[in-house]
Amino acid sequence: MSQKIDFSNWTCPLPLRDQPNVVMGHGGGGKLSAELVENIFLPAFANNTLVKLADSAVLDLNGAMTDGARLAFSTDSFVVKPLFFPGGNIGDLAINGTVNDVAMSGAQPLFLSAGFILEEGLAMDALGRIANTMGAAAKAAGVTLVTGDTKVVNKGHGDGVYINTSGIGVIPVGVNIAPHQARPGDVVIVSGEIGLHGTAIMSVREGLEFETVIETDCAPLNGLVAAMLDVTKDIHILRDPTRGGVASALNEIAKASGVGIVLSENKLPIPSAVRSACELLGLDPLYVANEGKLLAIVPREFADEILAKLQTQKFGERATIIGEVTAQHPNMVVAKTGIGGTRVVDMMIGEQLPRIC
Amino acid sequence: MSQKIDFSNWTCPLPLRDQPNVVMGHGGGGKLSAELVENIFLPAFANNTLVKLADSAVLDLNGAMTDGARLAFSTDSFVVKPLFFPGGNIGDLAINGTVNDVAMSGAQPLFLSAGFILEEGLAMDALGRIANTMGAAAKAAGVTLVTGDTKVVNKGHGDGVYINTSGIGVIPVGVNIAPHQARPGDVVIVSGEIGLHGTAIMSVREGLEFETVIETDCAPLNGLVAAMLDVTKDIHILRDPTRGGVASALNEIAKASGVGIVLSENKLPIPSAVRSACELLGLDPLYVANEGKLLAIVPREFADEILAKLQTQKFGERATIIGEVTAQHPNMVVAKTGIGGTRVVDMMIGEQLPRIC
Repeated sequence: MSQKIDFSNWTCPLPLRDQPNVVMGHGGGGKLSAELVENIFLPAFANNTLVKLADSAVLDLNGAMTDGARLAFSTDSFVVKPLFFPGGNIGDLAINGTVNDVAMSGAQPLFLSAGFILEEGLAMDALGRIANTMGAAAKAAGVTLVTGDTKVVNKGHGDGVYINTSGIGVIPVGVNIAPHQARPGDVVIVSGEIGLHGTAIMSVREGLEFETVIETDCAPLNGLVAAMLDVTKDIHILRDPTRGGVASALNEIAKASGVGIVLSENKLPIPSAVRSACELLGLDPLYVANEGKLLAIVPREFADEILAKLQTQKFGERATIIGEVTAQHPNMVVAKTGIGGTRVVDMMIGEQLPRIC
Repeated sequence: MSQKIDFSNWTCPLPLRDQPNVVMGHGGGGKLSAELVENIFLPAFANNTLVKLADSAVLDLNGAMTDGARLAFSTDSFVVKPLFFPGGNIGDLAINGTVNDVAMSGAQPLFLSAGFILEEGLAMDALGRIANTMGAAAKAAGVTLVTGDTKVVNKGHGDGVYINTSGIGVIPVGVNIAPHQARPGDVVIVSGEIGLHGTAIMSVREGLEFETVIETDCAPLNGLVAAMLDVTKDIHILRDPTRGGVASALNEIAKASGVGIVLSENKLPIPSAVRSACELLGLDPLYVANEGKLLAIVPREFADEILAKLQTQKFGERATIIGEVTAQHPNMVVAKTGIGGTRVVDMMIGEQLPRIC
């Protein structure tokens, strides 16, 4: 393992709060991001759907849907740097990112839009590779790219290409998944190993070399969701822990549901390469982004069956139970350590890894 | 009128084709944009809905909509420079742009998403003003912003803020508006004066000062569409002539429908301030972007009634008939000049005005 971190490009991971200007941490998915939403966007756009702050909006289209069906609608912009990285590029990230946001409402994702902001000078060859990757990822996820838009910005602005994808899908009748539904006694499942995407990006960006190349886990999760719903429609919460990682996603769930969450630290599936990279980079794998994993909060009585079903699926083979929901310490996530102690797993303030998705 | 054009920042309006790299013209809404879509995106994303290349995708959601209703789904990214300009800012542009794209399918726009790409260092105050403008514009258009996303990119990348909005709306039963439906004998209506948005942006960017400040015409057009559909559901085509202007929109319609279009040049509603600014800037108002105007291709028997109805509406007071559809010279748009001649109105190749929306 060689160590070649370039600190000249380092971004402060914990920018000061109450800034009069936007700082990198406002895009990190942690507390600063939440403050921006709460103080700027929610007051300006106030309405009951947005206030729920789920990955997708859930809409009944004012009666234009067949009885009981609802539409999930979600959007995500991708500004990852570099554009190409081990295991993928910005193209499959943009497809799977929105497929997964839509799927986390329990919906079957159906259609995506793609908005490209290209930087003058971008190689057509690179754009072609990204577009082909998007087409293949859409096909693999079973969604169709139906509408798009392209803008070009001057050389030096942008970073080659930014992509926004928005997605819509149909939520089956009887499915009701939402961030406030965690109940004491529920079980916390993660669908596989965590920390891969963020450390893959950071390793290539900082020029770190490991014996095993860490690749992004970028993958579509709608198949896992459909498999879980085959077991029972009574799934309380689904979340894909992207920016901010498992820790931030669980903190948001704890706060939205007014419950506590207890993780068993020794059950967290952290690959040894991720652990090594995180030690070197000074990161905590619990805060590192994933792009092909989901967290499920499920009733205890269905947990074993759901887990077994997940493990039959390609992207869920290493699914495991990592914790439980408790009535104690509401709004707080704690981890039981291997030596019998307990530590608070707080929400990140700014970001550990800038520009990862 | 003072003239202070800074040619050092001038962007070549006609970049060479067959470039190995992206040039500004690929975002201009003209031939280069079309080539990018045809050669890169369509092959990668191939499917029947995308191939239609309308402003919105029209979807039946695989049977999840009530009988006969269909969903319109559209996306647009906004990269305008400067962010604030006479009559508006990037915020109302982002709302009305997507409201209008959805409305051009005949749909009632209902819900929008907003994806922000913020540049590190952007003043919170500016972001707050933009967000408030978006909230007010959404309210004025009768749509709800239901889901969003925020990313931050490093200082020097981006231009303060880029905004993507995607929108969905419901197309009433019996409405069937699509780019290929122009028929010989149809009448071409424009809902008001043209050329305002593009010249407003360009004037402020180049420091031009006129006796009357030219303001953007940015406005929501869904009210006009609803009013027209009150007259008849038999409207053949609707288009909002944004990037590329009236000329490019009509060229796309002529090609999609395999018909010719004849404009009467002396009937084009071009404000004198726009005409002056265009002369100074060397632009043709037919190619300048509008953000609050629509083109309607309607059957001759309904033209007068539709026109009268439009003129009762706030954003349609100056609606007028500007031309007709003909079986002659298919795929081509021509203008009859005031002195009895005829000139070809070709599609723009690159762009006249970079970064206008």
